[in-house]
Amino acid sequence: MRLEEVELAAIGAASTPYKKQSGVPIQPNMGKREFAEIHIEPEYREGLNDLDGFERIWIISYLHRSNGVKMKVVPYRDTVERGLFSTRAPCRPNRIGLSLVTVKSIDVKKGIIKVHGIDLMHGTPILDIKPYFPGFECYPNSRAGWLDKSDDVQIADDRFNDNGNGN
Amino acid sequence: MRLEEVELAAIGAASTPYKKQSGVPIQPNMGKREFAEIHIEPEYREGLNDLDGFERIWIISYLHRSNGVKMKVVPYRDTVERGLFSTRAPCRPNRIGLSLVTVKSIDVKKGIIKVHGIDLMHGTPILDIKPYFPGFECYPNSRAGWLDKSDDVQIADDRFNDNGNGN
Repeated sequence: MRLEEVELAAIGAASTPYKKQSGVPIQPNMGKREFAEIHIEPEYREGLNDLDGFERIWIISYLHRSNGVKMKVVPYRDTVERGLFSTRAPCRPNRIGLSLVTVKSIDVKKGIIKVHGIDLMHGTPILDIKPYFPGFECYPNSRAGWLDKSDDVQIADDRFNDNGNGN
Repeated sequence: MRLEEVELAAIGAASTPYKKQSGVPIQPNMGKREFAEIHIEPEYREGLNDLDGFERIWIISYLHRSNGVKMKVVPYRDTVERGLFSTRAPCRPNRIGLSLVTVKSIDVKKGIIKVHGIDLMHGTPILDIKPYFPGFECYPNSRAGWLDKSDDVQIADDRFNDNGNGN
């Protein structure tokens, strides 16, 4: 089956303290003390209304610094190869990143969302923002394969030579 | 700031019981009794290894039946207009869907993931799959704005005339 190609456009970009991959938290909750901003383009700012009531939001991003696609990777928190889709490694076919961040403030008019906890490099294009709702998405005892037995690594090295988003 | 356009390609497609939007669960956990399959293209199947250890996975999809983009919507679970990004409505700039589903079985060789709980229409292109890890993503008391006070609507009507994914 041959599937259509789809085209996306960034709605904004991340402004973060991370200018290179090495040192980026490998997941957003590991960079809690760092502040960052999401800058949204003017035509999408009206859609930010009501988002300030949410403590956490999903940032869906385009991992623009990711090079190549690999179906097997050694993730940051493990020492053996794992199937790509069982990891958050950035060398993915569509380079889509998923980051759960804490909202600090939202300026709808200026299109600026201040957040803490982020795992994106500076300049990463943003594709979408969605609200986090525990009622849909919180399953504290959900079994998590190799990650349940993994090391507590928190900071990226340069193994993926690109965005830090991974695990 | 003019941002680059990015091109994506589907890695597979959803095979679900939902042939039209009306009647689709508005979130995956509202369709628990329904089974569905995700079919992955041959070149990406190796990446499914190790995923069977995970009880839940994120399905990132392209909401191909979504028509138009609106910055204000009346979500399924409310009666007043809300900013688009504070909802999961499908009329989004990049039409990206995020669904948390429960894994029933994975056949890596055939590229078939059997799941239950799904909120996607039949044929929806799949862009990415990521593991669900409670340690990164479970915040049971996270404040959730208008959704904390919302009605317990579970099934889509035809207001978005497209994919049911929403809230």
